[in-house]
Amino acid sequence: MRLLLFAGTTRTAEIDGISAAGADPEAMVWTPSADAEILEYGEPVRAPEVPVSPTGCPTPALATRAVRELADFETGVVDAGLAEPTAAPTVSVGARPGEDVRESDPVPTAPGAYAAARQFGRQFPDDEVTVAETIPGGTTTALGVLTALGEERGVSSSLPDNPIERKREVVAEALDASGLESGDAAGDPRSAVRRAGDPVLASAAGFVVGAARTGTAVTLAGGTQMLAVAALARHAGVERPLALATTTFVADDPAADLRGAAADFDLDLTVADPGFEESDHPAMARYVAGEAKEGVGMGGALALAEREGIEMARVRDRIRTLYDELVEGEPAPAGRDDGPR
Amino acid sequence: MRLLLFAGTTRTAEIDGISAAGADPEAMVWTPSADAEILEYGEPVRAPEVPVSPTGCPTPALATRAVRELADFETGVVDAGLAEPTAAPTVSVGARPGEDVRESDPVPTAPGAYAAARQFGRQFPDDEVTVAETIPGGTTTALGVLTALGEERGVSSSLPDNPIERKREVVAEALDASGLESGDAAGDPRSAVRRAGDPVLASAAGFVVGAARTGTAVTLAGGTQMLAVAALARHAGVERPLALATTTFVADDPAADLRGAAADFDLDLTVADPGFEESDHPAMARYVAGEAKEGVGMGGALALAEREGIEMARVRDRIRTLYDELVEGEPAPAGRDDGPR
Repeated sequence: MRLLLFAGTTRTAEIDGISAAGADPEAMVWTPSADAEILEYGEPVRAPEVPVSPTGCPTPALATRAVRELADFETGVVDAGLAEPTAAPTVSVGARPGEDVRESDPVPTAPGAYAAARQFGRQFPDDEVTVAETIPGGTTTALGVLTALGEERGVSSSLPDNPIERKREVVAEALDASGLESGDAAGDPRSAVRRAGDPVLASAAGFVVGAARTGTAVTLAGGTQMLAVAALARHAGVERPLALATTTFVADDPAADLRGAAADFDLDLTVADPGFEESDHPAMARYVAGEAKEGVGMGGALALAEREGIEMARVRDRIRTLYDELVEGEPAPAGRDDGPR
Repeated sequence: MRLLLFAGTTRTAEIDGISAAGADPEAMVWTPSADAEILEYGEPVRAPEVPVSPTGCPTPALATRAVRELADFETGVVDAGLAEPTAAPTVSVGARPGEDVRESDPVPTAPGAYAAARQFGRQFPDDEVTVAETIPGGTTTALGVLTALGEERGVSSSLPDNPIERKREVVAEALDASGLESGDAAGDPRSAVRRAGDPVLASAAGFVVGAARTGTAVTLAGGTQMLAVAALARHAGVERPLALATTTFVADDPAADLRGAAADFDLDLTVADPGFEESDHPAMARYVAGEAKEGVGMGGALALAEREGIEMARVRDRIRTLYDELVEGEPAPAGRDDGPR
């Protein structure tokens, strides 16, 4: 069992008020690189800091890493369009950072990344894989892809006050710019991700199509974005069972009818509850207030913890420890460029 | 604790009779990619097959993977000049495949890879790291580097009948081509790896310099090549303790006075004995006959097994199982390019 994180970027995240996956746009571009490092090493390495929202809500990578330290699964990262370096080992599928989805061809590397990731999925040797994502702005591009496929529905948000109208405007502009009407990309997932999506959706969808085809049990770990990946896979002709694992924060979000959507796409839904309301720790309180909600496979990781009988109280303890070490704690001194040659 | 595999290539391996790290030159160029996949996934993924020597001696990656499945350590791979793709996640340091060491500038990416790997080493978050290598032809470039540093000494071989004279000729030509005399690169590790080495030595040496400087406990897992890495680190001014862990096959090789060299470079030497003579299984018999000897961190992995109290009989069982599955067994059918889009 391996959790595979698709990490990338889209300049769509730079649109005002779209994403809270980072303190500001300068920090946000580092978020996927930092999430990959937190997953692999338990701390940022090349990235400057643990991603936090403007209000101090930490990245869900802390929850996924916390479970990883308690549960028994391997991890891997796919470079699905990183814009900043990462010290995490990555599998390359030829994805480049995505442009603002309102451009006419925001993800030109989508077809190549889709094909390379599909081949990786076909060859993937593990029997079971959990697919996760990290890409600021990703719920907007997910809405773009769902709309292009003719599968419009509500989407969730990393913000407590979901800017859904703003997202719909952006998506309308995105389809206009590509000369697409809603539903024009039905049955054509490559076109949907290239014209209205992002490199993470392109890479993850390709991987899922390849992995499902060769009989690997696939769990999509996330909310709206993984719903878009599921839609892309179904539109690609994948008929095998797919599972969706997410958090209560997304499942209970009225803006995104996740349960209904999961039924429509024939997804076996698991909703994991980390019990954050039992803590007033800053690492958890902002989630209860409706921020972040999901990401970096948090829901899937929590589901894996449940499957292994790991109590959520232990997961919360571990999250608290990680937060206190990494966010409250003193940053380790960075190596300066002197000393031994 | 993490085992970090530096995987790369040098066209030096194409020189007749230099290396046995693959069935033939066409297969050999895949060996580091396959070794990385075996370490990470337990089987070749994108690589066509398990690397075996012309006489059927399997890659030491089987031994390292066997220990990984029994012991508790993480792994990572650095792309130190791979010439073929790998499905293993890799850290990039900007290394490109090395040319034949007899050219005047065989490793132009060496200085950049050395610097990027040193920075990665400085930032490396784990307290302890085991550094491993996979590069066909690597003992010849190791001799080149040792000679350029003025540290000539015997070197081991993946062949039972060590073509040491041939290696010395190649190294003499290599230094000539670069206008270097033995010892001209003393105190200048970057020049030694660029003119007489390979991208794995450049990347591993840079990493070790950075990691040692920031207090990470470094174990060099291997034979002659890791000795060259140690020499490079010492010539870079690293005075901190360094450990060397290798197999009895290298330590008992009269062609390479490893114990003496370890003393000269102030290395804390561990010699691990897998007890292969207790088996006549083809996965082990060729080692007893003097083939392969080391590689892919085999000695370091065996030392980790000993440290965790894992009996060598269990390691041998696991190696036998892996060999029977991967070398004797039926290859899994490769995904054909049809089916779902």
